[in-house]
Amino acid sequence: MGSPSYIDISVRKWERLNSLIPSEWRLHDRYIPSGMKLSPFDSVHKLDCFEGDTGSLLGVPRACGILSGKEVEITEKWDIRGLLYEIAAKRLSSEDVTLAFCKRAAIAQQLTRCLTEPLFTSALEQARHLDDYLQKTGKLYGPLHGLPVTVKDTFNIKGVDSTVGITALAFKPASQDAPLVQLLRSLGAIIIAKTNVPQTMAFLDSVNHMFGRTLNPLNRLLTPGGSSGGEGVAVVMRASMIGFGTDIGGSIRIPAMYGKLRVALKPVAGPIGRSIQDIDTVMKELVPRAEFFGHDCIPALWPSLSVPKKKLRIGVLGSDGLVNPVPVISHMLKEVSGILARSKEYDIDIVKITPPAVMKKCLITSARLMDVDGAGPLLDLLAQTEEPLMPYLRGRTVRRSPTSIDKLYALCAERDQIEIEMRKKLWSWPPPAASTSESSGNPLDAIICPIAAHPVPKHDTYGNLSFTTTFVLLDYPTGTIPVRNLTEADLKLEYSDQDKPLSKWDEQNRIFWKTDRKVYLNTPLSVQVVVPRLHDHELCQVMDMVDTALKRHYLGDSKAML
Amino acid sequence: MGSPSYIDISVRKWERLNSLIPSEWRLHDRYIPSGMKLSPFDSVHKLDCFEGDTGSLLGVPRACGILSGKEVEITEKWDIRGLLYEIAAKRLSSEDVTLAFCKRAAIAQQLTRCLTEPLFTSALEQARHLDDYLQKTGKLYGPLHGLPVTVKDTFNIKGVDSTVGITALAFKPASQDAPLVQLLRSLGAIIIAKTNVPQTMAFLDSVNHMFGRTLNPLNRLLTPGGSSGGEGVAVVMRASMIGFGTDIGGSIRIPAMYGKLRVALKPVAGPIGRSIQDIDTVMKELVPRAEFFGHDCIPALWPSLSVPKKKLRIGVLGSDGLVNPVPVISHMLKEVSGILARSKEYDIDIVKITPPAVMKKCLITSARLMDVDGAGPLLDLLAQTEEPLMPYLRGRTVRRSPTSIDKLYALCAERDQIEIEMRKKLWSWPPPAASTSESSGNPLDAIICPIAAHPVPKHDTYGNLSFTTTFVLLDYPTGTIPVRNLTEADLKLEYSDQDKPLSKWDEQNRIFWKTDRKVYLNTPLSVQVVVPRLHDHELCQVMDMVDTALKRHYLGDSKAML
Repeated sequence: MGSPSYIDISVRKWERLNSLIPSEWRLHDRYIPSGMKLSPFDSVHKLDCFEGDTGSLLGVPRACGILSGKEVEITEKWDIRGLLYEIAAKRLSSEDVTLAFCKRAAIAQQLTRCLTEPLFTSALEQARHLDDYLQKTGKLYGPLHGLPVTVKDTFNIKGVDSTVGITALAFKPASQDAPLVQLLRSLGAIIIAKTNVPQTMAFLDSVNHMFGRTLNPLNRLLTPGGSSGGEGVAVVMRASMIGFGTDIGGSIRIPAMYGKLRVALKPVAGPIGRSIQDIDTVMKELVPRAEFFGHDCIPALWPSLSVPKKKLRIGVLGSDGLVNPVPVISHMLKEVSGILARSKEYDIDIVKITPPAVMKKCLITSARLMDVDGAGPLLDLLAQTEEPLMPYLRGRTVRRSPTSIDKLYALCAERDQIEIEMRKKLWSWPPPAASTSESSGNPLDAIICPIAAHPVPKHDTYGNLSFTTTFVLLDYPTGTIPVRNLTEADLKLEYSDQDKPLSKWDEQNRIFWKTDRKVYLNTPLSVQVVVPRLHDHELCQVMDMVDTALKRHYLGDSKAML
Repeated sequence: MGSPSYIDISVRKWERLNSLIPSEWRLHDRYIPSGMKLSPFDSVHKLDCFEGDTGSLLGVPRACGILSGKEVEITEKWDIRGLLYEIAAKRLSSEDVTLAFCKRAAIAQQLTRCLTEPLFTSALEQARHLDDYLQKTGKLYGPLHGLPVTVKDTFNIKGVDSTVGITALAFKPASQDAPLVQLLRSLGAIIIAKTNVPQTMAFLDSVNHMFGRTLNPLNRLLTPGGSSGGEGVAVVMRASMIGFGTDIGGSIRIPAMYGKLRVALKPVAGPIGRSIQDIDTVMKELVPRAEFFGHDCIPALWPSLSVPKKKLRIGVLGSDGLVNPVPVISHMLKEVSGILARSKEYDIDIVKITPPAVMKKCLITSARLMDVDGAGPLLDLLAQTEEPLMPYLRGRTVRRSPTSIDKLYALCAERDQIEIEMRKKLWSWPPPAASTSESSGNPLDAIICPIAAHPVPKHDTYGNLSFTTTFVLLDYPTGTIPVRNLTEADLKLEYSDQDKPLSKWDEQNRIFWKTDRKVYLNTPLSVQVVVPRLHDHELCQVMDMVDTALKRHYLGDSKAML
C-alpha cells in the first residue's frame, strides 16, 4: 500500500517546483542557508537548525553571479514608475525585465522557499507578446505594460494549482483566472510566480507539506508571517516589483478558497509593496477598473496622493484591551506619535485613545465567524490524503457541529452591534450635531497602533492576533509601515510596575521578554495605520504622510528609501 | 377567554391611530370612499366593495375645506428646493409648513389608510424648535431645515412601534432611532408619520390586521403596491415632500426587521419622490453623510446632476426569460425606446438585448435566499397572538426546516455565479481588452425594462416579481419613471401569434388581458431604469434624462410636471 498519499503528492509537488528552476539559475551551495538544506518536510518540524542563522540574505542575489550587471540594475535601480517609464521609452524590453525578475525569483526561492508555482515560461512568453505589441502598434498594451508582479497562491490562474497548502487540492489546476489576475494582465502586468501560504491559510507562518516552510530572509530564526508570508518575502527579495496578498475580511473574492472552506468573513486582497508610491502607482490603475472584473468590487476613484488641506486628527491606540504590548512596542508607538505631532511638514493633531470596552469582543467574534462550518470540510479535505495538521494548528483546529442559521444570524447581529459601537467610540461617528459645539468628540481621520503586541516572533510562536483580526472583522482598511530596527537600547526597556497582565498572551509575552528578548535585536519595528471602512485611498494618503515624517526623522531630509 | 389577542391588539392599534387625528381634521362623510367605510379587518378580505370606486382622490385635500388656502399652497406649490428656500428666507415658518403637511397626512389617512404611526405632535414640536433655532442663531439647523418627510413603518423611531404589520410586535416601541431617521433629523428634516406595509413585509399589497388595507388613491380597484405601499400613497397625496421606503437587497439596515426575520438578502432603503430633482436635492445631502450613521453605508459623493458628455448606451430588455409582458407593456417599452433614440437633446444609443439564460435563475435563487429560516420564526411570531396570515400569503408561507450552513453557502455561491454571468452577458463586463476592437461588446450604461409584466393590477393579484426581484438579488440600483396613462388605443393591442407563453404567469396574464383588461384604462404606465451595482448617482442621472425626454415628448417643450 505504501506511504499515505499526502507524502506522494508533496514529493511530486517539490519535484515539479524544482524542475521549473533551470540549472543555470541554481545557487552555489555556499549561498544556501542551513535552514534550506532541510527537506520541505523537515522544515515543518525541525526548527532548531535555524539557531545561529540570522544574517540577512538580501545581498545574495547581487553577489551570487547568476544575475548580470544589467539584471541587477533592472531589479534594484527602479521604483515602479521608473521601471514602467524605461519600458515605455523602449530603453528596456519587457523580455529583459521579465527574465531578470524570473532569475531573481528563482534565487529567492532557493534562499527562502517563498514560491509555490513559478510561472517563468508563461511570463517570458507574455513579455515577448508585449514587446511585439509595442513594436507593431507603437502603443503600450496597458498602463502596467511589462510590470513584474507576484501573487499569493490563493489567486486562481488558469492551468495552475491553487492548493492553499493542502495536498488534496494539488494537481487540480484552476479552470479560469481570478478577477485580480484578469485585471492585472489586462493592464499589461506579468505574473512571475505564485507564492507560499500556510496549510489551510488559517495561521501566521507560511508552512505546509508541499512547499515547506518559508524563511525570513532577514533572520531565519524568525517567522516571515502569513498567510501571505511567501508574498512578503518575494517582494523583499525583489522577485517582483509588487505583490498581492490577501487578508480575511473584505471585498475581492478568492475563488480558490471560496466554496472549499466556509467562513463568514470574506478575504480581501491587497498590495505588498516596497514604497507607498509603488502601491499608489498600481492602485490608481487597479481601483477604478476593479468593479469590471470582481463582481463584488466597489466602484471608486483613486485620486493622486496629496497632502490633505485640513488638520489631521490621528488617534494613538496603545492597547486593544486584550494585550498590553511589550515595552519596546509601546515605546516605539510613543516615539512615532511624537514624531508626527512635531512634524513641521504636516498639521497633525495626536489624540491618545483608550480601547473601547467592546473592542475586547472582536477577537472571539471573528474566531466564531471564521469557524461557522466547524472545521469539518477542512478536516475532510485533509483526510482524503491522510494529511496531518501543521504543528500550530493541532489542538486549535477541531471538528465541531456546523453553526445553525439562527446562530449565524446572531453572530452577524453581534458583529453589527460591535461595528456600531466601535464607530461611535473609536471614530466619534456620527459627528456631533450641527447645533452643538463639542470639539473633544470630533471624528478621527486615522488611528495608529501596533501590528502585534510583540516584535517579529520566532517560527510557530505568533501570539494574540487581536490587533489585526479586529480590523478585519470591522473591515477597516489598514496598512503597515516600517519604522526602524530594534536597537540595544530598546532591549533595556522594562515593563512598568503599573502594567498588569491583561491575559494569558500578556503573560507569555512577559516571560519571553524576560528570557529571550535578544532575538529581536536588529529586527524591523513597524506601525499599523487604520482608517474607517472603505477609505482605502485616505489610508494610502495617511501612510504616505506617516512614512515621509518617519523618514525625515530617521534618515534626515534626504528622504531616502528605507 | 374572549377573542384571540391579535384582534384585541388590532383594535387597540386602530383606536390609537384614530385618536391621533384631531376632530377638526376629520373629513366629511361625503368625501370618504366606500372602501374606507369598511373596518380595517374587513378591508383585508372584502374586495368586492371596491368595484365602481375608481375615481381619483387627489383633489379631495384641496376641496375638503380642512386646509386653508395658504396650507393648500404650502403643500402643492413648491418642489423641495422651493420649499426649503421659502423656509430659509423666513417667508414660511417650519411650524406652518409642518402643520399643513400633518393636516394633509391626516386627510390622506382617511382616504387611503396609508399611515401606521402619525407623529403630528412630535413633528410640530420639532418644527417649533427649528423656528427657534433659526430665530436665535440666524442659521439653518441643517440643509434640510424644515423638510416634511414620511418614512415606511420599518424605520425605527424611538418611542414608536415598528410592527411590520405583525400584531405580536405592537406596543413594543423602539428604543432608538434608525440610522436614516438620525441622519434625516440631524439635517433638519421633520418626520410627519410612518406609513403602512404588508403583514410580514413579504408581499406586494400593503395590508395587515392593525392598519387595514392601503388603498390606491388613483383607483380603489387597484393595489397601491408594497411593501412600501403606504409610503407611495403618502407621497402621491402630498402628505410629505418625499418619502423613504425599502426594497429587499442592499445596504441601509432596518433594525426593526433584522433579528426577527431571517433572510439572506438585506433590505435597502430608497427615496420615493415626486420628481428626479426632488430626489436629487435630498440624496445629495444624505449620501455623503450616510456612512457616519449607517454602519454598513458606503462612503460616496453625489455630484450635481449633469448630462454625461459621452454617448450613452442604453439596453432595452423586453423580457426576463420567465414572462413576456402583456401587449401594452411591450408596446410602451418600444415607444419609450423610440423616444430616447430620437431625442435631440441627448446622444443615446439604444441596444436591444435578449435576456441572458442565467436570468431565469434569479427569481428562484432570491426566493431561497429570502427563506433561509424556513419561515419558522415568522410563523412563531404570528402564533403568539393567534394571528392568521394575510390571504396572499396563505399556502405561500409554509414552515420548513431552516437551511443548513452548507446549503446557505451553496446558495451564496450560486448567487455569485449568477452575478458574474449577468455582468458579462447583460453589461458586457469586463470590457474588451485594450488590444482588441470589438465595438459590439461595449459595456452598457443603463437598461430600461418593464417593472412588471402587467400594468398596475387589482388587489392581491400581483403576478410574477422577476423584473423587480432579479435586480434586488443582483443589487443593481433601479428606479421607476411614470411614462403616460393607459389609453383606449392601448386596450386594442393583442398578443402576436409568435408569442408563446413562457410560464404559468404568462398564461394568467393572457387570460386577464383577454377578459378584464379594461380595468387598466387611465392607469399609469411606468418604465424601470437599471444601472450596475453602486452606480446610484448615475441612475439618477439617466432617470433625469429619460424623464426629461419623455416629458418633452408627451407634454411638449413646456416640460411641465407629469
